[in-house]
Amino acid sequence: MNPTIQPSTTPLHPAATQPATALRDFYHLGALPTQTVQLLVQRAAELRAGAAPHQFPGRALGLLFLNPSLRTSASFQRAAARLQLELVQLSGDGVWGLETATGTVMDGAAAEHVREAAAVLGRYVDVLAVRAFPAGKSLNDDLRDPLMNAFRNHAGVPLINMESARWHPCQALADWSTLEQHQIPTRGRLVLSWAWHPKALPHAVPNSTLCMAAQRGMDVTVLHPPGYALHPSVMAEAAQLAQASGGRVSSSEDRERALAGTEVVYAKSWGSLDCWGDAAAESAQRAHLRDWCVQPDWLQGSARFMHCLPLRRNVVAADAVLDGPASLLLDQAENRLHAQTALLEEILS
Amino acid sequence: MNPTIQPSTTPLHPAATQPATALRDFYHLGALPTQTVQLLVQRAAELRAGAAPHQFPGRALGLLFLNPSLRTSASFQRAAARLQLELVQLSGDGVWGLETATGTVMDGAAAEHVREAAAVLGRYVDVLAVRAFPAGKSLNDDLRDPLMNAFRNHAGVPLINMESARWHPCQALADWSTLEQHQIPTRGRLVLSWAWHPKALPHAVPNSTLCMAAQRGMDVTVLHPPGYALHPSVMAEAAQLAQASGGRVSSSEDRERALAGTEVVYAKSWGSLDCWGDAAAESAQRAHLRDWCVQPDWLQGSARFMHCLPLRRNVVAADAVLDGPASLLLDQAENRLHAQTALLEEILS
Amino acid sequence: MNPTIQPSTTPLHPAATQPATALRDFYHLGALPTQTVQLLVQRAAELRAGAAPHQFPGRALGLLFLNPSLRTSASFQRAAARLQLELVQLSGDGVWGLETATGTVMDGAAAEHVREAAAVLGRYVDVLAVRAFPAGKSLNDDLRDPLMNAFRNHAGVPLINMESARWHPCQALADWSTLEQHQIPTRGRLVLSWAWHPKALPHAVPNSTLCMAAQRGMDVTVLHPPGYALHPSVMAEAAQLAQASGGRVSSSEDRERALAGTEVVYAKSWGSLDCWGDAAAESAQRAHLRDWCVQPDWLQGSARFMHCLPLRRNVVAADAVLDGPASLLLDQAENRLHAQTALLEEILS
Repeated sequence: MNPTIQPSTTPLHPAATQPATALRDFYHLGALPTQTVQLLVQRAAELRAGAAPHQFPGRALGLLFLNPSLRTSASFQRAAARLQLELVQLSGDGVWGLETATGTVMDGAAAEHVREAAAVLGRYVDVLAVRAFPAGKSLNDDLRDPLMNAFRNHAGVPLINMESARWHPCQALADWSTLEQHQIPTRGRLVLSWAWHPKALPHAVPNSTLCMAAQRGMDVTVLHPPGYALHPSVMAEAAQLAQASGGRVSSSEDRERALAGTEVVYAKSWGSLDCWGDAAAESAQRAHLRDWCVQPDWLQGSARFMHCLPLRRNVVAADAVLDGPASLLLDQAENRLHAQTALLEEILS
Repeated sequence: MNPTIQPSTTPLHPAATQPATALRDFYHLGALPTQTVQLLVQRAAELRAGAAPHQFPGRALGLLFLNPSLRTSASFQRAAARLQLELVQLSGDGVWGLETATGTVMDGAAAEHVREAAAVLGRYVDVLAVRAFPAGKSLNDDLRDPLMNAFRNHAGVPLINMESARWHPCQALADWSTLEQHQIPTRGRLVLSWAWHPKALPHAVPNSTLCMAAQRGMDVTVLHPPGYALHPSVMAEAAQLAQASGGRVSSSEDRERALAGTEVVYAKSWGSLDCWGDAAAESAQRAHLRDWCVQPDWLQGSARFMHCLPLRRNVVAADAVLDGPASLLLDQAENRLHAQTALLEEILS
Repeated sequence: MNPTIQPSTTPLHPAATQPATALRDFYHLGALPTQTVQLLVQRAAELRAGAAPHQFPGRALGLLFLNPSLRTSASFQRAAARLQLELVQLSGDGVWGLETATGTVMDGAAAEHVREAAAVLGRYVDVLAVRAFPAGKSLNDDLRDPLMNAFRNHAGVPLINMESARWHPCQALADWSTLEQHQIPTRGRLVLSWAWHPKALPHAVPNSTLCMAAQRGMDVTVLHPPGYALHPSVMAEAAQLAQASGGRVSSSEDRERALAGTEVVYAKSWGSLDCWGDAAAESAQRAHLRDWCVQPDWLQGSARFMHCLPLRRNVVAADAVLDGPASLLLDQAENRLHAQTALLEEILS
């Protein structure tokens, strides 16, 4: 097991230093004051228990999906309806490619620049929620989260990140709610375990899961095979959050030691930073890693199993795990609705 | 003309024996007590005449289209709005492939298992409506209706079948309403006629039309060229329904005799059970059947023409039929709205 | 500069002669009495200033997009919500190809005829809005605007053109609103300038922009390189509108003379009538025209820049134009919402 990672002393990216006075930018959960997150989690619990949502007639939410979605789309549609929000929905099939580069001559595939798209949508709605996955070609490009940051900079209205190249804060907020719902101790242990998958998946969920658990004060271990570390900037930010919360962040390639005594196994597959954009290299590197499929014996004692879904059965986790009592999957999914309802209430209040 | 088919003495599939105490599962119209269907048809007529729909604020309907739709999508959207239902809409372009097999190692194309997808959506809505066409590869697989039955088993909320591999009960309910609207006698004759089409189409509509007319008490003949019989299990269920209602079910390959004296010609194209999944064999088998296009002289006396739409002009039926006074097409389509509004009222009451 | 085009003495197409007693057909702005347009623009200004929209509970709007959309879809969704309209949305990915020809044997790609699709949707909603771009193969076909005219003829309810092969009246109404908002004189000069683009684009926007400015009473010049004149029937109709309004219509291939002293440069790319359906010929013809990209020095004095969006940066116009104070792009886009809200109020009143 690697030593606990020490936080750097300077902020790692702009989101971590933004003002906390108003919730106008839900880009990354770790950028919010922990007290704000706790209030959102508390409100989500009230809504789950049957509290009436606030009503915002005449206000509007825009949902822009540049990538497919099942849970996020469904839960945001329902949240908007519960809040009596007017809804404007756009999805990838109806929208042409968006350019993000500055100063470029747009004679290629993109028919519109994100600057115009963001600013125009900001004229139609009071809050804009956007899903924009990484392009998966250049790691440096994806680390800058160009599409989501362009929407943040140009929409002119509060923005909700419905999963970007770097973060999936809505999932993290719902997962924090689920940990509270199931009374997982704040100081409990959570193992974020890499899992096999036929192809390289984005890092947004593992990044956000790690930072969420660290911010909550948990003892988090990122368990992965060689070549599948998360990005150093994310590890360092998680360490910083853990330092503030009294939590702990580490990484490990030793499955047996990492799993011993953990309260939560959170599984997720992600691509190798070393093979970014190179599908053949990625396939070769993970060819022998099919045993990274969560089995019942990974869950010791009363350990719980979490995953953001969608999930490939018997690839990421065995049927016996998914269909057994340890699984929190459906509560995680349901809490998307309650957490996002609470989030929209806060942004619109 | 073949002899009337005798009903078997045992139930043919689970849907036919389900309890009728509450309308929680609208999978197959023939599985409902006839009295329930009659009440729905009566309510649809009231709504068509201008009755105010009931209001269900705070309740939600989910619409999941895994295949394209025009009428079904539009009529369900409007029905939901008339009932003040909150609406959650997902369509195929935004949703990855869903696995239905049990125990499989999901390392292929499907990114999510229907068990999770169904259960998650059931957490977001009060009623879930799903469209899932047959895969069209294995007849045995399609006869089991795997996607729709998985949603029925795992959604945890009432399910509406918006067309599955086997049944299209919303169309059948609207068609029953249309027969009443145009005062087609309960004991009248209806010919369900196969029609030519460039490719093999699913059986859900002919199956449901046949059973609907039989359940209503009509004298139904399935008219088709050699090789285009409906499935024996469907013929047997229709016979059983006819026995209970006082109707009659037969099949025929003799167009002239079948059409003589019929009140309704219901046209529909469907694929051959013998060529399921074999497009080349299907094309060869139907190459000489282009004269199976409904012409004005197929409609004798005051006979009416029905079809579920979409319809290829001058392929399935001639312009003169479609644009003449015998056509009930638009009333069939409009009754989708009224029938589904009545159905949702009943499920949510 | 070519001489001013004289109006012909006979109506050019049916839309120009339709009765003005009720706003049941919003196909082409130029077909509306100018006073009606002025009232819509006035109402749009009131809505922009915060007037409460009228409420139409129980009425429904259908939106059918046979082509992609960002602004039009978003602004109509929001307009419908502000008016409390029930909304039925269908888009191309969920709808099969629609046949428009009369009497054809539909054994090709189209699965449904527009006659049925239009009439069915008219049974579900009170107003139907349709987007149907030109097929781009036969100029003569596209000039007849077959899809949109079929919807007009068969829907049985008021129809709104959300961009057809010939016209984009919603954009024109929003642009008229923007000209008023920015106090561009009614007798001011507007140059509609062709711009380079990697491929041939439809004529709906330039056609509608030209006619809008002419109807408003402006002195309009269509500035374009050789081979890129607009269609003579459109030029003639614009001249007729200008004659009635006191405006003036001309065309020019002399950029310097055309731009001198103009209040507005409205840029738009469009395909050559000579190369319709021939991508290779079009590419060859425009290969040397990349300098048709609006630069800051095209805008003299206080001249304003307009474009309907989406727009390719540094292809159609330079960053310095788009990001400078002359650009009215975002107000044009926002006025789509207000203009369409006013339009729906008028149609439904």
